[in-house]
Amino acid sequence: MAEMEQAKPSPTSLVLRALRSQPVPRPPIWLMRQAGRYLPEYRTLRARARSFFDLCYTPELAFEITLQPVRRFAMDAAILFSDILVIADALGCPVVFVEGVGPKLKPVRSAAARARLRRTAVVEKLAPVYATIRALKQELPTGTALIGFAGAPWTVAAYMVEGEGSKEFYVARAFARREPAAFAGLIELLTEATIEHLRAQIEAGADLVQLFDSWAGVLPESEFRRWCQEPVARIARALKSEHPEVPIIAFPRGAGLHLPSFAAAVPVDGLSLDTTVPVTAVRRALPELCLQGNLDPVALLAGGAGALEEAERIVAALASGPFIFNLGHGVLPETDPAAVAALVAHVKSLRLPRVPPHGAERDAC
Amino acid sequence: MAEMEQAKPSPTSLVLRALRSQPVPRPPIWLMRQAGRYLPEYRTLRARARSFFDLCYTPELAFEITLQPVRRFAMDAAILFSDILVIADALGCPVVFVEGVGPKLKPVRSAAARARLRRTAVVEKLAPVYATIRALKQELPTGTALIGFAGAPWTVAAYMVEGEGSKEFYVARAFARREPAAFAGLIELLTEATIEHLRAQIEAGADLVQLFDSWAGVLPESEFRRWCQEPVARIARALKSEHPEVPIIAFPRGAGLHLPSFAAAVPVDGLSLDTTVPVTAVRRALPELCLQGNLDPVALLAGGAGALEEAERIVAALASGPFIFNLGHGVLPETDPAAVAALVAHVKSLRLPRVPPHGAERDAC
Repeated sequence: MAEMEQAKPSPTSLVLRALRSQPVPRPPIWLMRQAGRYLPEYRTLRARARSFFDLCYTPELAFEITLQPVRRFAMDAAILFSDILVIADALGCPVVFVEGVGPKLKPVRSAAARARLRRTAVVEKLAPVYATIRALKQELPTGTALIGFAGAPWTVAAYMVEGEGSKEFYVARAFARREPAAFAGLIELLTEATIEHLRAQIEAGADLVQLFDSWAGVLPESEFRRWCQEPVARIARALKSEHPEVPIIAFPRGAGLHLPSFAAAVPVDGLSLDTTVPVTAVRRALPELCLQGNLDPVALLAGGAGALEEAERIVAALASGPFIFNLGHGVLPETDPAAVAALVAHVKSLRLPRVPPHGAERDAC
Repeated sequence: MAEMEQAKPSPTSLVLRALRSQPVPRPPIWLMRQAGRYLPEYRTLRARARSFFDLCYTPELAFEITLQPVRRFAMDAAILFSDILVIADALGCPVVFVEGVGPKLKPVRSAAARARLRRTAVVEKLAPVYATIRALKQELPTGTALIGFAGAPWTVAAYMVEGEGSKEFYVARAFARREPAAFAGLIELLTEATIEHLRAQIEAGADLVQLFDSWAGVLPESEFRRWCQEPVARIARALKSEHPEVPIIAFPRGAGLHLPSFAAAVPVDGLSLDTTVPVTAVRRALPELCLQGNLDPVALLAGGAGALEEAERIVAALASGPFIFNLGHGVLPETDPAAVAALVAHVKSLRLPRVPPHGAERDAC
């Protein structure tokens, strides 16, 4: 019985309704990195843990952290507390988070280093993640969608080759050009591991999944297609073939002028727009797709009436079609939780016209 | 007589012909940051100087460094060796370059700090820059265009507020939101100072100027218009009103989906495309504008046949209209000068069809 409960998506989740192009009375809202350092209750738990990954790998902690913003703000979705780099870690590329610096990885910069990575262990090593999802699924109120996620192969590969964060990922990009076969092998490995990881999250109870391609914005056209667009399309097709009812959101951050071709090529239910995306033009170009976004996290950091006005402009521009309110990137650590509360309350107070969304015909086909 | 020589643009410069939409037999080529650390002869001069700014402010050194890549590779243009942050320095915001880290500035984060900046001294303080241009103008062979440049106001302001380089310039963006009047004052000051600085470069002999907006890619739509597009348009209009014959190239790096509105709003002769811009689509959208770019500096770093093939693809896509070959960002310090030599020779070997470019009608109007 509990098993069946776990597998059933919350029927009234506004987030799922938007992703299925069904009408919603108000914009659904959740925020990228809604669980995290800006919340004092998160910092309390973080201070007690040995490492950042301890939080991700301890179901009790990850469960609690996932729920913190849902309790505080009644978000319309809970996103699993985890990290895009758990895949690298599970493949045998150790990751440590250095306070104030970011992730440091043992760089993978040769075909031999790539060959040492092991795909077989991924789902076993990430078992605590799925345990967290099972617990969350039982706990979450009806109507709060549970979001699973993974990093997209390019972004994870970029960290694995570079060995750390970067403005431009020159080392990773140079490796991809100098050793395209080895890099393609790494992308292939990550694509397969990501399918397994997301499949396991769905089977544990995730109502939808989001793919974060945080560094999609540094690549030229041909590489964007090869390293960002095609792997994400392959992951989406694989998940859709097994779980057609589970929506997928892609977040190709910084895709810029590649966005139209990405949207045409990748079979996703939702597209998360980064801060820089001009919303009116993109809504016009993609009238039927569920668009998610894209308030500037800096507007939320600055808070006040400005943030709420900007949120209204985004809703006005995007909510003529299927839409989920979100930021254009994660909540910044210095953000005042009171500003988040004000934003959520304001977005929830906005009423949408009860017209069938543009995408309604698509469902009828 | 020497004065007159200085003011006359080289009549046969292929770069100027492309910017005027006149036919050229082959693609003109120069490279952003073609003078710099990848050249051993630059490193020799750098090692002798006390600081990076010493190189910029000593006409003999800046002259020599500007000419190094022109001598080595017979580039079609020489770009003044200087830095986008000389404007900040001249306004009274001290800049130091920390080896291996980048520029460090005394941050401007209040209306009071903004008020302490002094526009009056800019052209006096930057007199060595104009002396360098005068000397270069006398030295350069006919056909080698001399490019002056400045940073665009947003990018320079972002460094001045942030106090250093950054991935996202959150501090600068938060300041712009929290103190919009003070930030607008800073942008206004930089816009006026940049007009003066570029005007002085033109009057010293620059054949054309380029405006570098290196961090245009981090802003949402409304801020992009206000902080990037409008100041650059204002600078372009001011320069055009006095020197209509001097072409202006804008480089709004990372503008992405803002590029069409930027191109429509800013009266420039050329648009420099960053690495991520899909060239076929942009050529189709902007058939008449001179487009410059956009080989990935990482492709040049990797070198070999791959770089040359990619260069050919770019020429094939862009040279149906007015076109200047360049990179999508600056030459990387680890680049092999031999790869640059091979690239320049290859691009110069490509022949263009002798059809009138798309922009020819524009000139007739």
